[in-house]
Amino acid sequence: MADSNLPYSLARSPWSSALTSVEPNTILLRGYPIDELMGRLSFGDAIYLLLTGELPSPSLSRLVDAMLVSFIDHGVTPPSTLAARNAATTGTTVRGAVAAGVVAFGRHYGGDALACRTLLDEGLDMAGQSQMLGAAAADLVERLVQSDGIPPPGFGHRLHTTDPRAARLMQIAHELEIDHRYTQFLRSMEHALARHPALSDELLPINVDGAIAAICGDMGLPPEVADALLLISRIPGLTAHVLEEQRREKPMRVIDPIAHSYDGPSGRRLGRT
Amino acid sequence: MADSNLPYSLARSPWSSALTSVEPNTILLRGYPIDELMGRLSFGDAIYLLLTGELPSPSLSRLVDAMLVSFIDHGVTPPSTLAARNAATTGTTVRGAVAAGVVAFGRHYGGDALACRTLLDEGLDMAGQSQMLGAAAADLVERLVQSDGIPPPGFGHRLHTTDPRAARLMQIAHELEIDHRYTQFLRSMEHALARHPALSDELLPINVDGAIAAICGDMGLPPEVADALLLISRIPGLTAHVLEEQRREKPMRVIDPIAHSYDGPSGRRLGRT
Amino acid sequence: MADSNLPYSLARSPWSSALTSVEPNTILLRGYPIDELMGRLSFGDAIYLLLTGELPSPSLSRLVDAMLVSFIDHGVTPPSTLAARNAATTGTTVRGAVAAGVVAFGRHYGGDALACRTLLDEGLDMAGQSQMLGAAAADLVERLVQSDGIPPPGFGHRLHTTDPRAARLMQIAHELEIDHRYTQFLRSMEHALARHPALSDELLPINVDGAIAAICGDMGLPPEVADALLLISRIPGLTAHVLEEQRREKPMRVIDPIAHSYDGPSGRRLGRT
Amino acid sequence: MADSNLPYSLARSPWSSALTSVEPNTILLRGYPIDELMGRLSFGDAIYLLLTGELPSPSLSRLVDAMLVSFIDHGVTPPSTLAARNAATTGTTVRGAVAAGVVAFGRHYGGDALACRTLLDEGLDMAGQSQMLGAAAADLVERLVQSDGIPPPGFGHRLHTTDPRAARLMQIAHELEIDHRYTQFLRSMEHALARHPALSDELLPINVDGAIAAICGDMGLPPEVADALLLISRIPGLTAHVLEEQRREKPMRVIDPIAHSYDGPSGRRLGRT
Repeated sequence: MADSNLPYSLARSPWSSALTSVEPNTILLRGYPIDELMGRLSFGDAIYLLLTGELPSPSLSRLVDAMLVSFIDHGVTPPSTLAARNAATTGTTVRGAVAAGVVAFGRHYGGDALACRTLLDEGLDMAGQSQMLGAAAADLVERLVQSDGIPPPGFGHRLHTTDPRAARLMQIAHELEIDHRYTQFLRSMEHALARHPALSDELLPINVDGAIAAICGDMGLPPEVADALLLISRIPGLTAHVLEEQRREKPMRVIDPIAHSYDGPSGRRLGRT
Repeated sequence: MADSNLPYSLARSPWSSALTSVEPNTILLRGYPIDELMGRLSFGDAIYLLLTGELPSPSLSRLVDAMLVSFIDHGVTPPSTLAARNAATTGTTVRGAVAAGVVAFGRHYGGDALACRTLLDEGLDMAGQSQMLGAAAADLVERLVQSDGIPPPGFGHRLHTTDPRAARLMQIAHELEIDHRYTQFLRSMEHALARHPALSDELLPINVDGAIAAICGDMGLPPEVADALLLISRIPGLTAHVLEEQRREKPMRVIDPIAHSYDGPSGRRLGRT
Repeated sequence: MADSNLPYSLARSPWSSALTSVEPNTILLRGYPIDELMGRLSFGDAIYLLLTGELPSPSLSRLVDAMLVSFIDHGVTPPSTLAARNAATTGTTVRGAVAAGVVAFGRHYGGDALACRTLLDEGLDMAGQSQMLGAAAADLVERLVQSDGIPPPGFGHRLHTTDPRAARLMQIAHELEIDHRYTQFLRSMEHALARHPALSDELLPINVDGAIAAICGDMGLPPEVADALLLISRIPGLTAHVLEEQRREKPMRVIDPIAHSYDGPSGRRLGRT
Repeated sequence: MADSNLPYSLARSPWSSALTSVEPNTILLRGYPIDELMGRLSFGDAIYLLLTGELPSPSLSRLVDAMLVSFIDHGVTPPSTLAARNAATTGTTVRGAVAAGVVAFGRHYGGDALACRTLLDEGLDMAGQSQMLGAAAADLVERLVQSDGIPPPGFGHRLHTTDPRAARLMQIAHELEIDHRYTQFLRSMEHALARHPALSDELLPINVDGAIAAICGDMGLPPEVADALLLISRIPGLTAHVLEEQRREKPMRVIDPIAHSYDGPSGRRLGRT
């Protein structure tokens, strides 16, 4: 409908929210006093609680943290980071520049988790109750090849031949025994893509969007939560780039997306944990 | 200057970033392989690493998580949350709606951490090397009263007479012995505000922005990091509200900022930890 | 695909834009010197030139101005205006607040012009070369009723039983003899909707999005231009609301979307032209 | 203050807006029926009416159109345009990409009109009622040189040695006899900057932001209106770039801010008018 304008006589519509209760001196996050959570609950756990309504088990907690860490930044070249830096170089507010990065996600970038989940749902539907994931995956890949659906969402990367974030997430999910039919079907798809004769020249490994989509599926989360985790994860990256741009560089500079290099530390390792 | 346009013959300016190294199959976050961090480092620790370049000690880790949890959401009435929900009701993308909330922070809301830090710097400068924080605080408060600077950034709240988040943060900082001159001066300011004859009718307790500003000061962090933590913290809240709006409510509804209630759980407690 | 990161060795890809040439002391807008256009070309004509590459005829010029004026503002209740005002009340920058309004357009609001154009294309396709628009319209309406596609994009309004902007646009287009098959089909759809037995309780007049979609179709413009005109048109409205909010109102106020009134002038008429 | 949360028992605060009255079937723009304005009032005139509350005289109308046309686009290199294009290449919505461009205006770009107006106000205050603008300008320039305020807002450009848009605006304002003390002082500033011994190596001509700031001052408009005109003016440019990016280019491309060229027409002239 065209833009709307309700009559001023419209009765008010009381509504409700189940997220956060706020009363004088008391804030409940999904029912838990916030000052009780602070100092006891990690940020990752609080994010899970807010998005799902429940505290995560220790295994889920570790997996959610891993997913949130995986997408936290990817250097200077993602279009969203370049949008944020170009905004930052004008001297705009940090929030304004981060917002420029937030909107720079679309069909071709950042929308993969939702689209991949839809694809996995389709494939699992085809497989039915059987264990015949391989056959269903092969059929689905054939259909995608015929309908110009390559690369499918969740697979392939312009730089990585093995996306280190996807591999690590699948490994953690496996260790924690949280990988079930979604991640199994994701692997079956990867194999089917690798074996299809029409795709012999293409490298289509599982990427981080696909891993997160499948893992969230196996965690029983609604489809949109995977996308939410990707968005939440990347905000610190966008923010750090905006701060670095405004701290290191002259204003109004030409931000070259190619002639740049990394001058931070390397070869650092976590101590024994 | 007016908008700029560089001659096409401008030599390229190679530049550098010290945040994240990205090479085929290898991603380093401030020098650490990201797949090594995943599953071992919490999201809060990764945020600290990305913003500062160093891993936090266990004490700092707990304090950073507490700060990130403290501001994660504050119900439906903050203007940023209403901006995000109004965007969401049009059926826009989740990222678009979250972006609407991200830009809805300004001088009067969300800018307090930076302004408070500036004020604390001023006050500590006045106090010099002495322990005479109380006298300097009283002088600063007098100056603020004279120059119409009440309420000062970091103090007061429209709803809470004691901001549960600020109290809890100060407590954790104290337990971890991370509170030093900034938080001490913050407390001195609170006392001076309470004692000033011209402010006898006003309640000006420390609020969460002030607590975070002071704690980040005592952690030796640059001023803009406190603001960054507030922004990063609130993103899950904005996202959860957008998802709830699009899941529960009809599109194009009139979002009443007064006639709403909380219908989620209450009285939940963390188990013994 | 997941977010991308190109190898630093990627050869540069020179690219081109055909919009505006900028050289020292010379700016060409689609080939015309900008200082020649200034003072001779109206803003509406310059918008048309920039979007299409050609100057409009006097008739098209009048029609484009009318479309741009039609959607310039619609009071305080559109969700985009409320998003912008909520951002403004925080004291954020004018541009930040306007940006909050810009993103607050989605499937259910503001996306009608594009969706309506698609529908009209479908219907005109069904009608083929014949003059049998009425029959095709009836068939299309029947299909929409069966597939729960009511109200269709371009029809209906929550407040107006006759959208004064749509009526006036159709009238101007008719006077200028710019109305052809798109606007004729739009009218046929309106009649078919009014006559369908299942819709006897619904009022579904042509709305401003539909009128603009059809008129742009008859002007031979690509589908996305109608949406662009709606966006460009509404920016002055969003800006005016942000300025009024920051000029008249206290910061951090609760913006009630119902208990408001208009206190500007009324009953003003243009002089004889 | 920290983010606020009002008690649910807060009495509602009715408020008013003087911009647009919306009733069933009737829309008044600052008191004029919108369907009466459509087809008779240009978009530029409607913008002026909405921002100021009054219709412009024919002279003001021509000048406002000229200002709106002057800033409509400036090619691919402004950071705001690059932010918008980087957003667009992800396949995000047109509005999302335009929003990325809207927020990419800050202290160093796009904030000049307001800052320039403030400076002119200061200088005119120094000159008092006298005609001694030259002396006041020289004093102001000396002060700016001493306080590192060079270049001042409103002067200088990285590409243009004579900003064709500023020159043309000043000319039109002069023809229409709308140039008074603000534009006179702007010229005096330009002369004083050119004559200052410390600035002999710098070219600091009046730029378009300065011209617009001064002209709006002479038109008696509040300071923020000049900034609003710049924002409104640039939206068609941002939109056209987003549409061109999504129409001509592959998604997820590296947008080189240097290796680009103009491939549109040139040498076009308006016919005799």
